[in-house]
Amino acid sequence: MKLSNGFWQTYKEIPADAEISSHQLMLRAGLIHKSGAGLYNYLPMGLRSIRKVENIIREELNKIGCFEITMTVVTPGELWQETGRWDKMGGLMLRFKDKKDSDLCISPTNEEAVTDIFRKTTKSYKQLPVKLYQINTKFRDEIRPRFGLMRGREFTMKDAYSFHMDKASLDEGYQEMYDAYTAIFTRLGLEFIPVVADGGAMASADSKTHEFQVVANAGEDLIIYSQEAQYAANVEKAQTVRAHSEFNLVLSPLKEVSTPSKSTIEDVCTFLNIPQHHSLKSMMYIATTGQESKLIMALLLGDDFLNEIKLHSFLKCDHLTPASDEQMKSAKLWKGYIGPVCLEADIAMVFDKSINLDASYIIGGNKKDIHIEGYNPKRDTIKIDVADLRLARAGDLTLDGEHIVTEKRGIEVGHVFQLGDKYTKDMKVGILDQNGKLVTPLMGCYGIGVTRVVAAAIEQNHDNNGIIWPKTIAPYDIYFATIVKAEEFVKIADEIYKEMLNAGIEVVYDDRNIGPGNKFKDSDLLGLPFRVVLGERDFGATGELEIIERKTGNVSKVKEDDLISTLINLLK
Amino acid sequence: MKLSNGFWQTYKEIPADAEISSHQLMLRAGLIHKSGAGLYNYLPMGLRSIRKVENIIREELNKIGCFEITMTVVTPGELWQETGRWDKMGGLMLRFKDKKDSDLCISPTNEEAVTDIFRKTTKSYKQLPVKLYQINTKFRDEIRPRFGLMRGREFTMKDAYSFHMDKASLDEGYQEMYDAYTAIFTRLGLEFIPVVADGGAMASADSKTHEFQVVANAGEDLIIYSQEAQYAANVEKAQTVRAHSEFNLVLSPLKEVSTPSKSTIEDVCTFLNIPQHHSLKSMMYIATTGQESKLIMALLLGDDFLNEIKLHSFLKCDHLTPASDEQMKSAKLWKGYIGPVCLEADIAMVFDKSINLDASYIIGGNKKDIHIEGYNPKRDTIKIDVADLRLARAGDLTLDGEHIVTEKRGIEVGHVFQLGDKYTKDMKVGILDQNGKLVTPLMGCYGIGVTRVVAAAIEQNHDNNGIIWPKTIAPYDIYFATIVKAEEFVKIADEIYKEMLNAGIEVVYDDRNIGPGNKFKDSDLLGLPFRVVLGERDFGATGELEIIERKTGNVSKVKEDDLISTLINLLK
Repeated sequence: MKLSNGFWQTYKEIPADAEISSHQLMLRAGLIHKSGAGLYNYLPMGLRSIRKVENIIREELNKIGCFEITMTVVTPGELWQETGRWDKMGGLMLRFKDKKDSDLCISPTNEEAVTDIFRKTTKSYKQLPVKLYQINTKFRDEIRPRFGLMRGREFTMKDAYSFHMDKASLDEGYQEMYDAYTAIFTRLGLEFIPVVADGGAMASADSKTHEFQVVANAGEDLIIYSQEAQYAANVEKAQTVRAHSEFNLVLSPLKEVSTPSKSTIEDVCTFLNIPQHHSLKSMMYIATTGQESKLIMALLLGDDFLNEIKLHSFLKCDHLTPASDEQMKSAKLWKGYIGPVCLEADIAMVFDKSINLDASYIIGGNKKDIHIEGYNPKRDTIKIDVADLRLARAGDLTLDGEHIVTEKRGIEVGHVFQLGDKYTKDMKVGILDQNGKLVTPLMGCYGIGVTRVVAAAIEQNHDNNGIIWPKTIAPYDIYFATIVKAEEFVKIADEIYKEMLNAGIEVVYDDRNIGPGNKFKDSDLLGLPFRVVLGERDFGATGELEIIERKTGNVSKVKEDDLISTLINLLK
Repeated sequence: MKLSNGFWQTYKEIPADAEISSHQLMLRAGLIHKSGAGLYNYLPMGLRSIRKVENIIREELNKIGCFEITMTVVTPGELWQETGRWDKMGGLMLRFKDKKDSDLCISPTNEEAVTDIFRKTTKSYKQLPVKLYQINTKFRDEIRPRFGLMRGREFTMKDAYSFHMDKASLDEGYQEMYDAYTAIFTRLGLEFIPVVADGGAMASADSKTHEFQVVANAGEDLIIYSQEAQYAANVEKAQTVRAHSEFNLVLSPLKEVSTPSKSTIEDVCTFLNIPQHHSLKSMMYIATTGQESKLIMALLLGDDFLNEIKLHSFLKCDHLTPASDEQMKSAKLWKGYIGPVCLEADIAMVFDKSINLDASYIIGGNKKDIHIEGYNPKRDTIKIDVADLRLARAGDLTLDGEHIVTEKRGIEVGHVFQLGDKYTKDMKVGILDQNGKLVTPLMGCYGIGVTRVVAAAIEQNHDNNGIIWPKTIAPYDIYFATIVKAEEFVKIADEIYKEMLNAGIEVVYDDRNIGPGNKFKDSDLLGLPFRVVLGERDFGATGELEIIERKTGNVSKVKEDDLISTLINLLK
């Protein structure tokens, strides 16, 4: 693009609502334009990067035998009703009625739509496995859209779906996709970690799921990580062992202690001068399944935190919600003074596996301003359910106790997931197997947030001056800036620009009539891999141009005749 | 694509709701899949064609300096309110509220959105003209979606917009786009006609607009056409001269005649034994501007038909609607017996220019079962407004009277339109001109129905056996069908398939274990430009393969060694 008649504009101001670097830089570098809350138009520079991401995804998916389709952005409610998701999808799905009063929605995901295509096209085991994908617009009605393309309302996503005759084929397809994702994110030039993720309450025990996380401080996900153990899991799912703690193994009778206005673990333990893990934390939840609700007490060491997802999975209930103040009151529980003994209501208890059941603890006394000393789970509680409930954290050990884990922040850019027969069963899909018997096929689904990838790449690759694009997804390869006045040098510059184009180099030619300082600032902000400078004085004296690598700042000089071949080499 | 592990399915049944050939063939050939009323998923074969259309459009637009962007599919109501279109867009625009109760819609068009981008990026005359386009999903909530991709609710459209400092630049940009469209539709292999179109009531007198129409019997548009005169116009806009007619120039006094139950022109004229153009037709309309409504009588020769758009343009009113039965009643008008004399209500009259004001006509008597003979407009009516009101038709003459026009049916696939300052004015866009003065820039807009192009191409190019793709947009180039059993021939076929792929030939390799009849049927239905057949017997005997051109049915034989070079030549 020749900037003198191009369409590109940079901005100095940092937009007020842009909190993270990628959001600020994408606006300032003229990649996107805000059209409304969580709605961004893609300007030419931004769109070029998005297209490059799309094409890399396409190439890798086509390699493993996936076929590209495009499903409608608007889908009929009927389809969603077949699986019951019309009611279950919640507020993120934008629903509306058409002129004929039929239910429609803007698809946030497409399991039903693709299963409908599959059941109408595929009848025999000979046609399986089937792997379909699309790259399309999605909409989620986020209440608080933020971070630009990172968590927008409208975004571009690649969603793929596979159909298999049995678990072995699903596992094989899953691994293929996992490998394709690894190839894709590697080609995209990102530092990423595939992490074990939580499959949600619906997932069966043997269903695999991984997230592909781009490591970045602004990431919304927390990853529990050990390079030595090659372990990485979303904190939602991470299983670790609490590092060694000395417990109080001296048993003594239960005894009330007055703890006026000490309703936090920290206050109580400071007051009594004991370590926090010599106390137990009692968290109250309501577990609902169908019409039935149960009061649940989750017990953890005083300095541990509950992982709600783990509790939910353990209970296998439909919904899990923290008990409200009213619910606690009607069960005669004092907020801040809850404990596992002297209870009036019928409460099921689950103990975190880090609790030493032989030790003695301070617990809430179930009375105002009262705690109880000397609680010993084995002695004082009849029915003890133990589960892994605690939130993993840096400093924990891997399950084998061999390695210490750390924490990293990540941006989820991809997700692979074994769905099993959830959709094919609900939508009554039958495929004839070798013996002519109807079989319900198994499904996998695989997403990549295309526009989020671009934001994540910038979040991971920038400095104070602007973006530092990975070569494969930079909008252009070269920023060609000229510092020339004399007609003859303008001519030479035009000539060099044409040579670059002819050599297939994607180049932004900054021939604008502005000072070199502004050109270089724009160049750094846009962050193409290399800047080439033709300065009238230097070029006049030595016949050389300057090449500056954006990432390292390395400067080299090159004769005009060697420019193209040098650039082609650098861009490899 | 190797069909044994590909994803493609054809169907024998003609779907009940598919009325026209392209709709039937797209479903039967497995190009699209219906997901709901007017909603179609694009399957791999269909998507490949769509992508080819998109790329041809992209190449031609990039050539003339257009920049590609992507605007959000969902746009905020605020933008539409700036131009007043939030209220004016009517029922085709799908509106809804988000969680925060803000107005949103699925954009049916993007003038406001692009103007918002323009005003935030462009400040100086030096940056103009600016030409932006996108290829994106659109949604129009048609009550009766039909004809598959031809008039679906969700569809893919290319919409381009240009911004100019003055009319001269707008005219130049318009012509460039017109030429680019001509190049695009030529490359797409379509028989098309650019026709003069109607700009609507909003358009200023000097604003140009053309439609690009693909000639096809199933087309919904009627084109008035003269090849000799190089005249083509949508019937909505077409201006012609009525072919010579003998009028009744003998004047006589007004006289009532009884015409019981003769309420149509045809019945009255047959009854009175006079040619229909010796009668006048009186059509009643309500013209509304702001709060004011006026009763209008449009008068035409008895065998002519009213072009409402012409009447609307002449009256320059906001809305024009046919008068209802009640409105006619309250104006004391008898339906079927209305005429320009003996009126009680205050009615403005407009006479079509084909009416000879000196002649004598039969008219309605404004009483039940009564007509009036001897009406002479000049003598009997005080205020006579004359305008071109009649619908042009085959047999008319061009305006210069030199050529007879014919009718063709067309499918509108493109539209170029000079918008003027409507949007830039409403949205308060100012650009600094050479003298530092703020100027309101002028706009053009330019659409192509991408998915409709694919349907139109099929509508224009098919036979009883299936589609006959234009080479440039066929999903693949070659259908390679094998009739082989022996392992050695399978190997040779596999080898030839690989050679085709290596040569960059896009090939569907039908290696399925089905009979040749079914392969040929599928091949004809899909309609790729050439079929290559490797038959074990023939190939074994002569070492030759067969090449059949889909369009002509021409068969040629070629030695294996010459196959690739022959195909490359044929595909040029």
